[in-house]
Amino acid sequence: MALKTGVQYEESLRKLNLKVYLLGELVSNPVDHPMIRPSMNSVKMTYSLAEDPQHEDLMTATSHLTGQKVNRFCHLHQSTEDLIKKVKMQRLLGQKTGSCFQRCVGMDAINAVDSTTFEMDEKLGTEYHKRFLAFLNMMQEQDLTVDGAMTDPKGDRGLAPSKQADPDMYVHVVEKKPDGIVVRGAKAHQTGAINSHWILVMPTISMQKDDADYAVCFAAPADAEGIFYIYGRQSCDTRKLEGGEIDVGNKQFGGHEALMVFEDVFIPWENVFMCGEHEFSGMLVERFAGYHRQSYGGCKVGVGDVLIGAAALAADYNGAAKASHIKDKLIEMVHLNETLYACGIACSSEGRRTPSGTYLINLLLANVCKQNVTRLPYEIARLAEDIAGGLMVTMASERDLKHPEVGKVIEKYFQGVASVPTEHRMRILRLIENMTLGTAAVGYRTESMHGAGSPQAQRIMISRQGNLEQKKNLAKELAGIR
Amino acid sequence: MALKTGVQYEESLRKLNLKVYLLGELVSNPVDHPMIRPSMNSVKMTYSLAEDPQHEDLMTATSHLTGQKVNRFCHLHQSTEDLIKKVKMQRLLGQKTGSCFQRCVGMDAINAVDSTTFEMDEKLGTEYHKRFLAFLNMMQEQDLTVDGAMTDPKGDRGLAPSKQADPDMYVHVVEKKPDGIVVRGAKAHQTGAINSHWILVMPTISMQKDDADYAVCFAAPADAEGIFYIYGRQSCDTRKLEGGEIDVGNKQFGGHEALMVFEDVFIPWENVFMCGEHEFSGMLVERFAGYHRQSYGGCKVGVGDVLIGAAALAADYNGAAKASHIKDKLIEMVHLNETLYACGIACSSEGRRTPSGTYLINLLLANVCKQNVTRLPYEIARLAEDIAGGLMVTMASERDLKHPEVGKVIEKYFQGVASVPTEHRMRILRLIENMTLGTAAVGYRTESMHGAGSPQAQRIMISRQGNLEQKKNLAKELAGIR
Amino acid sequence: MALKTGVQYEESLRKLNLKVYLLGELVSNPVDHPMIRPSMNSVKMTYSLAEDPQHEDLMTATSHLTGQKVNRFCHLHQSTEDLIKKVKMQRLLGQKTGSCFQRCVGMDAINAVDSTTFEMDEKLGTEYHKRFLAFLNMMQEQDLTVDGAMTDPKGDRGLAPSKQADPDMYVHVVEKKPDGIVVRGAKAHQTGAINSHWILVMPTISMQKDDADYAVCFAAPADAEGIFYIYGRQSCDTRKLEGGEIDVGNKQFGGHEALMVFEDVFIPWENVFMCGEHEFSGMLVERFAGYHRQSYGGCKVGVGDVLIGAAALAADYNGAAKASHIKDKLIEMVHLNETLYACGIACSSEGRRTPSGTYLINLLLANVCKQNVTRLPYEIARLAEDIAGGLMVTMASERDLKHPEVGKVIEKYFQGVASVPTEHRMRILRLIENMTLGTAAVGYRTESMHGAGSPQAQRIMISRQGNLEQKKNLAKELAGIR
Amino acid sequence: MALKTGVQYEESLRKLNLKVYLLGELVSNPVDHPMIRPSMNSVKMTYSLAEDPQHEDLMTATSHLTGQKVNRFCHLHQSTEDLIKKVKMQRLLGQKTGSCFQRCVGMDAINAVDSTTFEMDEKLGTEYHKRFLAFLNMMQEQDLTVDGAMTDPKGDRGLAPSKQADPDMYVHVVEKKPDGIVVRGAKAHQTGAINSHWILVMPTISMQKDDADYAVCFAAPADAEGIFYIYGRQSCDTRKLEGGEIDVGNKQFGGHEALMVFEDVFIPWENVFMCGEHEFSGMLVERFAGYHRQSYGGCKVGVGDVLIGAAALAADYNGAAKASHIKDKLIEMVHLNETLYACGIACSSEGRRTPSGTYLINLLLANVCKQNVTRLPYEIARLAEDIAGGLMVTMASERDLKHPEVGKVIEKYFQGVASVPTEHRMRILRLIENMTLGTAAVGYRTESMHGAGSPQAQRIMISRQGNLEQKKNLAKELAGIR
Repeated sequence: MALKTGVQYEESLRKLNLKVYLLGELVSNPVDHPMIRPSMNSVKMTYSLAEDPQHEDLMTATSHLTGQKVNRFCHLHQSTEDLIKKVKMQRLLGQKTGSCFQRCVGMDAINAVDSTTFEMDEKLGTEYHKRFLAFLNMMQEQDLTVDGAMTDPKGDRGLAPSKQADPDMYVHVVEKKPDGIVVRGAKAHQTGAINSHWILVMPTISMQKDDADYAVCFAAPADAEGIFYIYGRQSCDTRKLEGGEIDVGNKQFGGHEALMVFEDVFIPWENVFMCGEHEFSGMLVERFAGYHRQSYGGCKVGVGDVLIGAAALAADYNGAAKASHIKDKLIEMVHLNETLYACGIACSSEGRRTPSGTYLINLLLANVCKQNVTRLPYEIARLAEDIAGGLMVTMASERDLKHPEVGKVIEKYFQGVASVPTEHRMRILRLIENMTLGTAAVGYRTESMHGAGSPQAQRIMISRQGNLEQKKNLAKELAGIR
Repeated sequence: MALKTGVQYEESLRKLNLKVYLLGELVSNPVDHPMIRPSMNSVKMTYSLAEDPQHEDLMTATSHLTGQKVNRFCHLHQSTEDLIKKVKMQRLLGQKTGSCFQRCVGMDAINAVDSTTFEMDEKLGTEYHKRFLAFLNMMQEQDLTVDGAMTDPKGDRGLAPSKQADPDMYVHVVEKKPDGIVVRGAKAHQTGAINSHWILVMPTISMQKDDADYAVCFAAPADAEGIFYIYGRQSCDTRKLEGGEIDVGNKQFGGHEALMVFEDVFIPWENVFMCGEHEFSGMLVERFAGYHRQSYGGCKVGVGDVLIGAAALAADYNGAAKASHIKDKLIEMVHLNETLYACGIACSSEGRRTPSGTYLINLLLANVCKQNVTRLPYEIARLAEDIAGGLMVTMASERDLKHPEVGKVIEKYFQGVASVPTEHRMRILRLIENMTLGTAAVGYRTESMHGAGSPQAQRIMISRQGNLEQKKNLAKELAGIR
Repeated sequence: MALKTGVQYEESLRKLNLKVYLLGELVSNPVDHPMIRPSMNSVKMTYSLAEDPQHEDLMTATSHLTGQKVNRFCHLHQSTEDLIKKVKMQRLLGQKTGSCFQRCVGMDAINAVDSTTFEMDEKLGTEYHKRFLAFLNMMQEQDLTVDGAMTDPKGDRGLAPSKQADPDMYVHVVEKKPDGIVVRGAKAHQTGAINSHWILVMPTISMQKDDADYAVCFAAPADAEGIFYIYGRQSCDTRKLEGGEIDVGNKQFGGHEALMVFEDVFIPWENVFMCGEHEFSGMLVERFAGYHRQSYGGCKVGVGDVLIGAAALAADYNGAAKASHIKDKLIEMVHLNETLYACGIACSSEGRRTPSGTYLINLLLANVCKQNVTRLPYEIARLAEDIAGGLMVTMASERDLKHPEVGKVIEKYFQGVASVPTEHRMRILRLIENMTLGTAAVGYRTESMHGAGSPQAQRIMISRQGNLEQKKNLAKELAGIR
Repeated sequence: MALKTGVQYEESLRKLNLKVYLLGELVSNPVDHPMIRPSMNSVKMTYSLAEDPQHEDLMTATSHLTGQKVNRFCHLHQSTEDLIKKVKMQRLLGQKTGSCFQRCVGMDAINAVDSTTFEMDEKLGTEYHKRFLAFLNMMQEQDLTVDGAMTDPKGDRGLAPSKQADPDMYVHVVEKKPDGIVVRGAKAHQTGAINSHWILVMPTISMQKDDADYAVCFAAPADAEGIFYIYGRQSCDTRKLEGGEIDVGNKQFGGHEALMVFEDVFIPWENVFMCGEHEFSGMLVERFAGYHRQSYGGCKVGVGDVLIGAAALAADYNGAAKASHIKDKLIEMVHLNETLYACGIACSSEGRRTPSGTYLINLLLANVCKQNVTRLPYEIARLAEDIAGGLMVTMASERDLKHPEVGKVIEKYFQGVASVPTEHRMRILRLIENMTLGTAAVGYRTESMHGAGSPQAQRIMISRQGNLEQKKNLAKELAGIR
């Protein structure tokens, strides 16, 4: 079997023995917990759509290891066409879930680890790539969701890993044994961690010699001994506990992040892909970040499509769709959203083959893509709030709507154009609220800002890749300076 | 007595007999309801600060009716200095509450109704102004909080009030009796309605002849027979029910909006200030909106001060305060915030006396002020999210922090610079979350957009006031076109 | 011969008998006129670079007609790879000239006319495509520069062509003869017209039935009987007449536009490619505009590279290169410039085959590309002016620098860092002035705005292509609206 | 006499014996030189308007020294009302000239020197203030135009004045004599220098002890022995030499900047207002810059009014005035322009009395004002170029229009709406060109950027004045951090 169905994916999660804390309690069954479930549904969509022949071309690929059909999330990009299809798949999933579907981190991690271990082995004579391919083979074979885990808590941002007051602020090797290593620390902001079968841990910054113990990359089952999770709160998260279906905005789908803690976890050597080779930590970070910055040119665009559609519906329901300023704002939203898409496509189209055969995106354009993602979705959201109108944040609750007496008043006074049921108007406004202020805003706004690296991280990369010296020479030539 | 203490204000609210629905239930004691209470605290601050000699100059004024000291919220502006002090008072309250303190709508309403009724009486020989002054005298004497109620539900935005499928989509007179009128309809988005003693209802648009029944302005006790309220949901509203103090972000203060419904409410003539004089509805709307657009150049600036301070603290706690890009972002936030303040001050300084003696702001600059408020707070919020870092939306809950075991893990891994307790960092991030995504974001973002009129409403006013013909003449003169 | 050398191109121009008015005089020898010459040099660069093996891959292509190597400017795009190479070629030429190199309009015109005539013939049974291929064959064989002429003077923008006070405000057929047609009218803003061998005239808007006489597409030699040109003034144009080399900023290169007038010009049928088929005018306009909007994602990016390099040099020469705000502004300039490039690449990569075999760009993304071009170069220019410093616009002239006494004072006081000659600093500031205020600003700013259609034209296309209905369905699905 | 007429001003300039180099030649009669004359006309307007009773209130003031009526440009601000009137006067002059009218630098200089010398004398026991008042008395009595000269050439921006390779990169004292001092150096970018009677020199940065010789402030006649000027080139400057009246855009008015060189100039002690008191150089710079940053909230707004009017006319003449996107762009232009005005008014209204009695603007808001001026005029200009259309930069010359044959063709094809003469359309487009690309663009764009200090200078001041610590305390209070 190389492709799980959605149902099989859900069942496979039930078999895991994850230790998850949420709102101060240990969760016995994460899959069915109403706050977690919508995020699981989003990941599940990455399996379900792959079953659909209509989406086969985007959702699946042919494994370069086995020649078998695999889910594209388990695939190493073999061409720029693969890179482009990745972005299109992400846009599709953003459209279908209106949320973060979480599985990208694993895909981006395997592509980065592949080429980095290959080049590290070439240079240092290590044999990490072989181990990695064995892991990849299992991942493809079992169609696993893998959490690519990079971001450490970091403590004081002004200090290196080994200089922190607490040595555990970055994941590090605390013991090397004949059969493996023992690691300690934590990974923060772990997207989709609770919905993953395995985790693939990478260092979070370019390490120096003193930080060699922190230059560690490995894979582990998500429920390995010593690993546990603390679920992150999101804006409006407990609306999912209220049992209704309107006020949540997007009843079926969502995303999540968690803190993942390693309390002296044992990792056998076969699952270790870097251990002390600090000089390759930078390459790994740069490539993972590069792939992930490309990703945002797909997924956030798909979510943006939903938000634009919702705003257009709100205008229809308000009876304002023909106003020229409304039409112009919708055009602007499309323009900004497609600008992000253009960046996602361009960094893919301009990708290049690395020595391992895996294709890497154009790093400059991928960073430009993400930098735009830290800005344009905020403006798209602002315009959506403009079109939606104030009712979005002053509207009565679903329970009021269902109330035998009050409900009639709400039906009457929250009516927009006469032909549209008040409930539809409420639903669409709650969806916009969800995406601009609520649980999905976490993904569409704050994670557009910080996911795959905060804005300044992209600026540093743009500075490095921008080739100012060549540009100076062009100017000198034309100015007649010799 | 012309000044209530904060305590007296709270007690006076308890004596009201308001009918309030919230989350599908009738609330027995709004003052102490944990979801409503913080908004009451914000209004209470307008009384408490007036008791403080340090703030007396801003918070109080001398009544032009009685010569007594009154709360500035009950005062008619007698000079441009008064207009400027209004803005400064609002900035102060924004700083103290980090929220919408709600009482401005009443202040802006009395100032607009005063000059409009005066000029209407002059032109039409009516006697509304005298009635209005009697109401104002009571308001000042009892230091009342008044809800200036303007916005109707509006139904289909493309249709006039009298052309709506349901005639009640705008408040209107359904019967005229010898002793008063009977009104029906609703007012939406009513800021602070549940914390008000009286309501002062105004028409929401410039009416034509066919809509004369909708051109109605009157005052009524907030608990008059036939009036009831449906409380509006806010992002993260139920965190206030959780009993903690960190996750709410701002435990003490908040704002609220509600739908206010009039089921055939009787208004005695002495409280009616317009009834059918549709040709003056536009003036009343324009002036109320003008004053309220000025207000945003004060209150939102004060809230912005808090958000800038919170972002600066987050940078300190992250150990990132010295990074040049962080410093630059804080400068940008200050710059944008002070730009709004400059607009608030300028439209006040350029105010002018109306025939009744009450001062009106400069309408062009007040609209420019509000138009900027529909944009700049969004950018300030974006920059705050940038500086805060992703932890703001992935952080574990207060309950986790209080958990005997998990709490230690959180203390350890959410630590920033070693000298700052993790709890402090969590508190400041939750405050930023509150202001950018949570309950206060409703006030800082969406209401910055739509409060006092949506962006397009300001653009129409800017178009009207911009005097393009004079500008064309300037250009012709210089271009030598005669 | 299928490739002219630069020298051959220049010689071929001399053989033309163009009638050109410039500053009120008939120009006897346009090629050597100091105001025109730099624009000729820019076009010449499209020939010279094609001679250079280093640039052969971008600058040339294999004709699908003859299999011969032709200049890419004469080529019909046979793949998305061709579309991408087009953009890269344009960026290269922008870098080499810092100017508009003018030859793109012809390339974009032949690609649009090819597919449109093919589809028109298929539908209407006409035989325009065959004629067009004959023309194309000659163009490739002789390596011609062709002016793709679209924009009519348009008169009153509110009126259709046939409703104008003067019927000649759009080019139209005034007579049909057995052997050809007679046309009258003018084409405005004709980029590179004086440097072209032939012109390829297209209608400028989608025509209705009443405007059938205006739906005309044809080719003519640039010096055909009845055609003449009036040269357009540019900011700082006469600096080129001063004889110096510093104050012009970019001594060697430039661009130009001209009004091209048709005084009853006879066109034999073999050169007519549309005559009355108004229903295909829209397609032709849309495709030409689409190709040309793509073009700007290449050429303006190349010019932007020069401007960024010049700003970076100015910072070096001022001794300010290490200031963090300077570094950040350069990063922002690169970011914005690469965003344009990403759009140029993306609309190419997402191109598609048309029935004639010629590839068309993705129209939505090409319009998004151009829309960004109407904004981002302005911000890049603003940042360049920021970095350059005020000296750029207050600096003494080249003649002062060359003055025996004053020159020493200028050397002394306009010195920046001690190691850089004052003249170098002056040269680089004049280059920035040239690109932000001078002759090249016409290309980098105003033509970024209006070339290939004014901003609103792109917004209309984005509106048409944005597929709002599909987006609404996505939102309905997630909001649970059925 | 305390008020000169415009004619008297012009005559008084003729009596000066200025040494001015322009385009490599010594100018014998600057007043009548066609490149300089328009800038003289702009300054002359500050005299002519003061003669007009309609503008008396803004243009004149009552001297606090003599009680006589003086031109406001010679006045020390005695109240916030004076500060506001200053801004309004500047807007008026910007409207009347569409240019920089140059006289502000002197007004801003005297106000800064007044309060600084007063406070310096108080602290150090010096007697500069008395000397300064004598100078001021003469200035008011003779209604002089004074060039407030601050900016030095600065050489390497990374080095202090005394550390420069050439010690003359900042103006400094080279000799102290019993009767006065000898100074050497230059002042760059001197606005209106050639149109001034006297110059008032100030240091350009906060000096340290080592730079004490550079902490020098003094007044001198503009034609003092040893002073000479080198005129700065502007974009399109030589169009003023062509003799026409259309292509210059704004025939009558302009501005200029020059390099002012001091070759060992002797200054008697009575005209020395600071000499070595380096600890007061910072205050003087900060206050002059503050006043001058306020100024831009007036003058640039007036110029903006002209540009908006010109764009509106262009739309009328193009037949596009009713298009909703055109109307919206004009609204945006007004909005941005009035935002600048609001900042100018606000920093004035919030001014405060200094110990000398002279009123100082609010420094934070003045810096916010100028920071906005470095941005918003660029967007206003961009929108003007959008509305104007491409013809602005491709239009034939005035000589072509006057040509007996070609002129008819131009009349025909450059016609917009039929009711407007083509020449009018050409005039208005040339005016827009003048303001966005030509001589006036130097003032409206680049000097908006760098005049009164480059953008980063304002950011440093905003950082200092922004009071982050107070803001942090507000946030701590609300977050419950003690």
